[in-house]
Amino acid sequence: MYKALNTIIDSADRNPKRNYQISTYKNKGESAMIKRIEVFKEGGFGDKAMKRLLVHDSPYFKVLNFNFKAGQELPIHSHDIEGQLSIVVLEGDGVFLGKDESEFPAHPGDVLISDISEPHGIRATSQMRVLVTIAPPI
Amino acid sequence: MYKALNTIIDSADRNPKRNYQISTYKNKGESAMIKRIEVFKEGGFGDKAMKRLLVHDSPYFKVLNFNFKAGQELPIHSHDIEGQLSIVVLEGDGVFLGKDESEFPAHPGDVLISDISEPHGIRATSQMRVLVTIAPPI
Repeated sequence: MYKALNTIIDSADRNPKRNYQISTYKNKGESAMIKRIEVFKEGGFGDKAMKRLLVHDSPYFKVLNFNFKAGQELPIHSHDIEGQLSIVVLEGDGVFLGKDESEFPAHPGDVLISDISEPHGIRATSQMRVLVTIAPPI
Repeated sequence: MYKALNTIIDSADRNPKRNYQISTYKNKGESAMIKRIEVFKEGGFGDKAMKRLLVHDSPYFKVLNFNFKAGQELPIHSHDIEGQLSIVVLEGDGVFLGKDESEFPAHPGDVLISDISEPHGIRATSQMRVLVTIAPPI
Protein backbone atom coordinates (compact mmCIF):
# COMPACT_ATOMS: atom_id res chain seq x y z
CA MET A 1 0.00 0.00 0.00
CA TYR A 2 1.20 3.49 -0.81
CA LYS A 3 1.35 6.40 1.58
CA ALA A 4 1.21 9.79 -0.11
CA LEU A 5 2.99 12.80 1.32
CA ASN A 6 1.74 15.92 -0.39
CA THR A 7 4.57 18.21 0.47
CA ILE A 8 8.22 18.17 0.55
CA ILE A 9 11.78 18.10 -0.16
CA ASP A 10 14.56 16.53 -2.05
CA SER A 11 17.78 16.99 -0.15
CA ALA A 12 19.66 17.05 -3.45
CA ASP A 13 17.87 20.21 -4.52
CA ARG A 14 19.07 23.68 -3.73
CA ASN A 15 15.64 25.22 -3.30
CA PRO A 16 13.89 22.52 -1.34
CA LYS A 17 11.14 24.74 0.00
CA ARG A 18 10.00 25.76 -3.44
CA ASN A 19 9.94 22.31 -4.99
CA TYR A 20 6.64 20.54 -5.05
CA GLN A 21 7.43 16.94 -4.41
CA ILE A 22 5.01 14.12 -4.02
CA SER A 23 6.95 11.57 -2.11
CA THR A 24 5.56 8.09 -1.67
CA TYR A 25 6.59 4.93 0.04
CA LYS A 26 6.16 1.47 -1.32
CA ASN A 27 5.22 -1.76 0.36
CA LYS A 28 8.65 -2.77 1.48
CA GLY A 29 9.63 0.56 2.96
CA GLU A 30 11.42 1.43 -0.26
CA SER A 31 11.08 5.09 -1.14
CA ALA A 32 9.83 6.28 -4.51
CA MET A 33 10.06 9.74 -5.97
CA ILE A 34 7.90 12.01 -8.06
CA LYS A 35 8.06 15.80 -7.98
CA ARG A 36 7.18 18.88 -9.95
CA ILE A 37 9.41 21.94 -10.39
CA GLU A 38 8.24 25.28 -11.80
CA VAL A 39 11.40 26.32 -13.57
CA PHE A 40 10.02 29.66 -14.82
CA LYS A 41 9.17 30.65 -11.23
CA GLU A 42 12.28 29.31 -9.56
CA GLY A 43 15.01 30.30 -11.98
CA GLY A 44 16.26 33.88 -11.89
CA PHE A 45 18.47 36.07 -14.06
CA GLY A 46 21.74 37.78 -13.20
CA ASP A 47 23.23 41.02 -14.46
CA LYS A 48 26.80 39.77 -14.48
CA ALA A 49 26.41 36.23 -15.77
CA MET A 50 23.88 33.52 -16.47
CA LYS A 51 22.04 32.10 -13.46
CA ARG A 52 22.00 28.40 -12.72
CA LEU A 53 19.36 26.37 -10.88
CA LEU A 54 19.82 22.75 -9.90
CA VAL A 55 16.50 21.11 -10.76
CA HIS A 56 17.43 17.51 -10.00
CA ASP A 57 20.41 15.31 -9.26
CA SER A 58 20.33 11.53 -8.98
CA PRO A 59 22.43 8.55 -10.00
CA TYR A 60 20.53 8.57 -13.32
CA PHE A 61 20.80 12.15 -14.52
CA LYS A 62 21.37 15.73 -13.50
CA VAL A 63 18.93 18.43 -14.62
CA LEU A 64 19.89 22.12 -14.56
CA ASN A 65 18.16 25.32 -15.63
CA PHE A 66 20.38 28.07 -17.06
CA ASN A 67 18.91 31.53 -17.56
CA PHE A 68 20.65 34.12 -19.71
CA LYS A 69 20.22 37.78 -20.42
CA ALA A 70 20.95 38.82 -23.99
CA GLY A 71 24.66 38.47 -24.69
CA GLN A 72 25.38 36.10 -21.81
CA GLU A 73 26.69 32.63 -22.54
CA LEU A 74 27.69 29.21 -21.36
CA PRO A 75 31.15 29.24 -22.94
CA ILE A 76 32.13 26.38 -25.17
CA HIS A 77 33.70 23.56 -23.18
CA SER A 78 33.92 19.79 -22.91
CA HIS A 79 34.82 17.13 -20.38
CA ASP A 80 36.78 14.03 -21.28
CA ILE A 81 34.26 11.62 -19.79
CA GLU A 82 31.61 9.18 -20.94
CA GLY A 83 28.04 10.33 -21.31
CA GLN A 84 25.78 12.71 -23.19
CA LEU A 85 23.81 15.85 -22.47
CA SER A 86 20.82 17.66 -23.91
CA ILE A 87 20.17 21.41 -23.98
CA VAL A 88 16.53 22.31 -24.55
CA VAL A 89 15.47 25.89 -25.29
CA LEU A 90 12.44 26.71 -23.14
CA GLU A 91 12.18 30.41 -23.95
CA GLY A 92 14.05 33.04 -25.94
CA ASP A 93 16.62 32.87 -28.68
CA GLY A 94 20.32 32.36 -29.13
CA VAL A 95 22.88 30.10 -30.74
CA PHE A 96 24.32 26.73 -29.86
CA LEU A 97 28.10 26.78 -29.95
CA GLY A 98 30.20 23.96 -31.41
CA LYS A 99 33.87 23.49 -32.00
CA ASP A 100 35.82 25.56 -34.52
CA GLU A 101 33.56 28.54 -33.72
CA SER A 102 30.55 26.89 -35.34
CA GLU A 103 27.13 28.32 -34.40
CA PHE A 104 23.64 26.89 -34.85
CA PRO A 105 20.32 28.66 -34.25
CA ALA A 106 18.68 27.98 -30.88
CA HIS A 107 14.98 28.79 -30.65
CA PRO A 108 12.20 27.54 -28.37
CA GLY A 109 11.78 23.79 -28.80
CA ASP A 110 15.24 23.32 -30.29
CA VAL A 111 17.32 20.60 -28.67
CA LEU A 112 21.08 20.11 -28.79
CA ILE A 113 22.28 16.59 -28.02
CA SER A 114 26.01 16.17 -27.50
CA ASP A 115 28.61 13.85 -26.13
CA ILE A 116 29.94 15.38 -22.94
CA SER A 117 33.39 15.04 -24.50
CA GLU A 118 32.39 17.11 -27.53
CA PRO A 119 32.84 20.90 -27.33
CA HIS A 120 29.46 22.58 -26.75
CA GLY A 121 28.04 25.81 -25.42
CA ILE A 122 25.24 28.34 -25.85
CA ARG A 123 24.95 32.10 -26.22
CA ALA A 124 21.77 34.13 -25.78
CA THR A 125 20.70 36.82 -28.21
CA SER A 126 17.59 37.63 -26.14
CA GLN A 127 16.56 36.78 -22.60
CA MET A 128 16.69 32.99 -22.71
CA ARG A 129 15.91 29.96 -20.54
CA VAL A 130 17.28 26.49 -21.24
CA LEU A 131 17.14 23.12 -19.49
CA VAL A 132 20.26 20.95 -19.47
CA THR A 133 20.17 17.21 -18.76
CA ILE A 134 23.38 15.26 -18.18
CA ALA A 135 23.45 11.46 -18.15
CA PRO A 136 25.14 9.99 -16.29
CA PRO A 137 25.41 13.00 -13.95
CA ILE A 138 28.72 14.83 -13.68
CA MET B 1 42.73 16.67 -35.40
CA TYR B 2 38.98 16.75 -35.88
CA LYS B 3 37.19 16.21 -39.11
CA ALA B 4 33.84 17.94 -39.29
CA LEU B 5 30.99 16.48 -41.29
CA ASN B 6 28.32 19.08 -41.68
CA THR B 7 25.67 16.61 -42.60
CA ILE B 8 23.59 14.28 -40.96
CA ILE B 9 22.29 11.05 -39.81
CA ASP B 10 21.84 9.20 -36.63
CA SER B 11 20.68 5.71 -37.39
CA ALA B 12 18.83 5.67 -34.09
CA ASP B 13 16.56 8.52 -35.16
CA ARG B 14 13.34 8.04 -37.01
CA ASN B 15 13.58 11.17 -39.13
CA PRO B 16 17.24 11.17 -40.04
CA LYS B 17 16.85 13.49 -42.99
CA ARG B 18 15.38 16.24 -40.88
CA ASN B 19 17.88 16.10 -38.07
CA TYR B 20 20.75 18.51 -38.22
CA GLN B 21 23.70 16.63 -36.95
CA ILE B 22 27.24 17.75 -36.77
CA SER B 23 29.16 14.54 -36.65
CA THR B 24 32.85 14.60 -35.91
CA TYR B 25 35.61 12.07 -35.64
CA LYS B 26 38.39 12.14 -33.16
CA ASN B 27 42.02 11.30 -33.51
CA LYS B 28 41.75 7.61 -32.94
CA GLY B 29 38.90 7.04 -35.33
CA GLU B 30 36.47 7.14 -32.42
CA SER B 31 33.24 8.85 -33.37
CA ALA B 32 31.83 11.79 -31.43
CA MET B 33 28.34 13.13 -31.63
CA ILE B 34 26.65 16.53 -31.51
CA LYS B 35 23.36 17.34 -33.20
CA ARG B 36 20.49 19.78 -33.17
CA ILE B 37 16.81 18.85 -33.50
CA GLU B 38 14.02 21.37 -34.15
CA VAL B 39 11.27 19.70 -32.16
CA PHE B 40 8.61 22.31 -33.00
CA LYS B 41 9.18 21.71 -36.70
CA GLU B 42 9.56 17.95 -36.62
CA GLY B 43 6.84 16.95 -34.18
CA GLY B 44 3.27 16.75 -35.46
CA PHE B 45 -0.19 16.40 -33.93
CA GLY B 46 -2.76 13.67 -34.43
CA ASP B 47 -6.52 13.77 -34.35
CA LYS B 48 -6.95 10.39 -32.69
CA ALA B 49 -4.15 10.39 -30.16
CA MET B 50 -0.97 12.15 -29.13
CA LYS B 51 1.91 12.03 -31.61
CA ARG B 52 5.33 10.78 -30.61
CA LEU B 53 8.73 11.70 -32.06
CA LEU B 54 11.94 9.93 -31.15
CA VAL B 55 14.47 12.72 -30.69
CA HIS B 56 17.39 10.63 -29.47
CA ASP B 57 18.25 7.19 -28.22
CA SER B 58 21.61 6.15 -26.81
CA PRO B 59 22.99 4.02 -24.00
CA TYR B 60 22.77 7.12 -21.78
CA PHE B 61 19.20 8.36 -22.24
CA LYS B 62 16.22 8.35 -24.54
CA VAL B 63 14.58 11.65 -25.51
CA LEU B 64 11.04 11.77 -26.91
CA ASN B 65 8.70 14.55 -27.94
CA PHE B 66 4.99 14.01 -27.28
CA ASN B 67 2.48 16.39 -28.83
CA PHE B 68 -1.13 16.52 -27.65
CA LYS B 69 -4.28 18.17 -28.80
CA ALA B 70 -6.57 19.40 -26.03
CA GLY B 71 -8.02 16.43 -24.17
CA GLN B 72 -5.42 13.90 -25.34
CA GLU B 73 -3.22 12.21 -22.77
CA LEU B 74 -0.35 9.94 -21.95
CA PRO B 75 -2.29 7.69 -19.59
CA ILE B 76 -0.93 7.08 -16.15
CA HIS B 77 1.44 4.11 -16.13
CA SER B 78 4.67 2.82 -14.62
CA HIS B 79 7.34 0.22 -15.31
CA ASP B 80 8.89 -1.87 -12.57
CA ILE B 81 12.47 -1.00 -13.52
CA GLU B 82 15.31 1.16 -12.28
CA GLY B 83 15.70 4.69 -13.56
CA GLN B 84 14.05 8.08 -13.68
CA LEU B 85 12.39 10.28 -16.26
CA SER B 86 11.65 13.94 -16.75
CA ILE B 87 8.70 15.50 -18.55
CA VAL B 88 9.26 19.13 -19.56
CA VAL B 89 6.41 21.29 -20.85
CA LEU B 90 7.62 23.16 -23.94
CA GLU B 91 4.31 24.71 -24.98
CA GLY B 92 0.67 24.66 -23.91
CA ASP B 93 -1.08 23.64 -20.73
CA GLY B 94 -2.32 20.53 -19.02
CA VAL B 95 -1.95 18.46 -15.89
CA PHE B 96 0.63 15.96 -14.70
CA LEU B 97 -1.03 12.77 -13.52
CA GLY B 98 0.07 10.88 -10.41
CA LYS B 99 -1.22 7.87 -8.59
CA ASP B 100 -4.57 7.84 -6.78
CA GLU B 101 -5.95 10.19 -9.45
CA SER B 102 -3.78 13.07 -8.28
CA GLU B 103 -3.28 15.96 -10.72
CA PHE B 104 -0.75 18.80 -10.75
CA PRO B 105 -0.68 21.85 -13.03
CA ALA B 106 1.59 21.57 -16.08
CA HIS B 107 2.51 24.86 -17.75
CA PRO B 108 5.44 25.91 -19.95
CA GLY B 109 8.69 25.45 -18.07
CA ASP B 110 7.21 23.02 -15.55
CA VAL B 111 9.16 19.81 -15.09
CA LEU B 112 7.98 16.52 -13.64
CA ILE B 113 10.72 14.23 -12.37
CA SER B 114 9.68 10.69 -11.49
CA ASP B 115 11.00 7.26 -10.85
CA ILE B 116 10.09 5.10 -13.84
CA SER B 117 8.48 2.74 -11.34
CA GLU B 118 6.21 5.48 -9.97
CA PRO B 119 2.83 5.99 -11.69
CA HIS B 120 2.97 9.08 -13.93
CA GLY B 121 1.19 10.56 -16.93
CA ILE B 122 0.05 13.81 -18.51
CA ARG B 123 -3.17 15.21 -19.95
CA ALA B 124 -3.43 18.27 -22.19
CA THR B 125 -6.02 20.96 -21.65
CA SER B 126 -4.79 22.92 -24.70
CA GLN B 127 -2.56 22.01 -27.62
CA MET B 128 0.60 20.96 -25.81
CA ARG B 129 4.18 19.86 -26.53
CA VAL B 130 6.36 18.10 -23.99
CA LEU B 131 9.83 16.57 -24.01
CA VAL B 132 10.39 13.31 -22.13
CA THR B 133 13.86 12.11 -21.10
CA ILE B 134 14.36 8.58 -19.76
CA ALA B 135 17.61 7.50 -18.08
CA PRO B 136 18.73 4.88 -18.52
CA PRO B 137 16.74 4.38 -21.74
CA ILE B 138 13.87 1.90 -21.78
